[in-house]
Amino acid sequence: MKFYGYFRSSAAYRCRIALNLKGLTPELAFVHLRKGEQRSANFLALNPQGFVPALEIGGEVLTQSLAIIEYLEETHPSPPLLPSDLLDRAHVRALALSIACDIHPLQNLRVLNHLREEFGQDQAGIDRWARRWIESGLSAYEATLIASGRSGAFSFGDAPTLADICLIPQVFGAQRFGADISGLKTIARITTHAEAHPAFYAAHPSRQPDTEV
Amino acid sequence: MKFYGYFRSSAAYRCRIALNLKGLTPELAFVHLRKGEQRSANFLALNPQGFVPALEIGGEVLTQSLAIIEYLEETHPSPPLLPSDLLDRAHVRALALSIACDIHPLQNLRVLNHLREEFGQDQAGIDRWARRWIESGLSAYEATLIASGRSGAFSFGDAPTLADICLIPQVFGAQRFGADISGLKTIARITTHAEAHPAFYAAHPSRQPDTEV
Repeated sequence: MKFYGYFRSSAAYRCRIALNLKGLTPELAFVHLRKGEQRSANFLALNPQGFVPALEIGGEVLTQSLAIIEYLEETHPSPPLLPSDLLDRAHVRALALSIACDIHPLQNLRVLNHLREEFGQDQAGIDRWARRWIESGLSAYEATLIASGRSGAFSFGDAPTLADICLIPQVFGAQRFGADISGLKTIARITTHAEAHPAFYAAHPSRQPDTEV
Repeated sequence: MKFYGYFRSSAAYRCRIALNLKGLTPELAFVHLRKGEQRSANFLALNPQGFVPALEIGGEVLTQSLAIIEYLEETHPSPPLLPSDLLDRAHVRALALSIACDIHPLQNLRVLNHLREEFGQDQAGIDRWARRWIESGLSAYEATLIASGRSGAFSFGDAPTLADICLIPQVFGAQRFGADISGLKTIARITTHAEAHPAFYAAHPSRQPDTEV
């Protein structure tokens, strides 16, 4: 098993947390996104989308962080990253997707580059754009947690799930762009618990072999 | 079971296809996105994200199209929307997510409104933006299909899966924004098959009770 990542990629960060939670230690490969290595012919042959993460396994290359994590869940069921009750599973998946589909794609590198190059936005305009989606998206996440009545130390109960695997990298993204999420008390509580959890701690972008300041 | 949708929503269109494939006929409710009904207090109480689709079932409200469809798959396994082999499942999920995460979120209504209001883009600028992500995203989808060697009448083999459930609404979106996908022959072949399939045919935005010209 070989994992292709980049320290600052939110989607790679999700997979690192999941691999750690499952106790898996793949060989690591690094794709430097700022240097454009994801657009090299070699990497595009692995993943035509030109994104990290990618997971090479059994002669196949798996892509898309949530597809990779669902695969890890199906092949290594313990500890579970999804609840067993089917309605609860849908709830946890919806929380994860609310970040993976409705917040994160709007702030990834290629999109921000486009805003800069095509729409003439400066850093302040880009930060405002990113904050707009992060603040509204995480506020809705918080409201969903409160309405559910099912959060504990983590988004669903007291053990980490797929929802937290998406949430914590997004909170890191919120900090990078200066988003104000100080009013989101449930997310703040979960973040505190996650920071103390070894699987989340070791996956942090500041603690990877390819970390740059 | 009560399904909240809007005829032109790509995410609701996905769920309509899945419900049809599973032979399920929920009660229907319509949320008029252009009139802003998704931001009404009543609807936000159902879904704090303010998005369609939503599926009310067993006293719960499920949100996020892919979470809803995974729930339908788990509760109504036949016909399957995911292959049984675990690597194949990851492949199909990755295809679906490449659309749901990396194309569709960039062209939804709130994002286009933001480009218009905050960045002063006219319709031509907005169409160019949408085409940029649709054309590159669907080209990568096509390349992934070809590299996989596993497509047939549909994206994976000869029966529809979660991948096609995301693909066909995105092809509809490509047409709306005038994206040029004429070179993508595998996607064109799949689209022809899907158009002839009753579950896809009945789910088309032009054939819903709330359809407007």
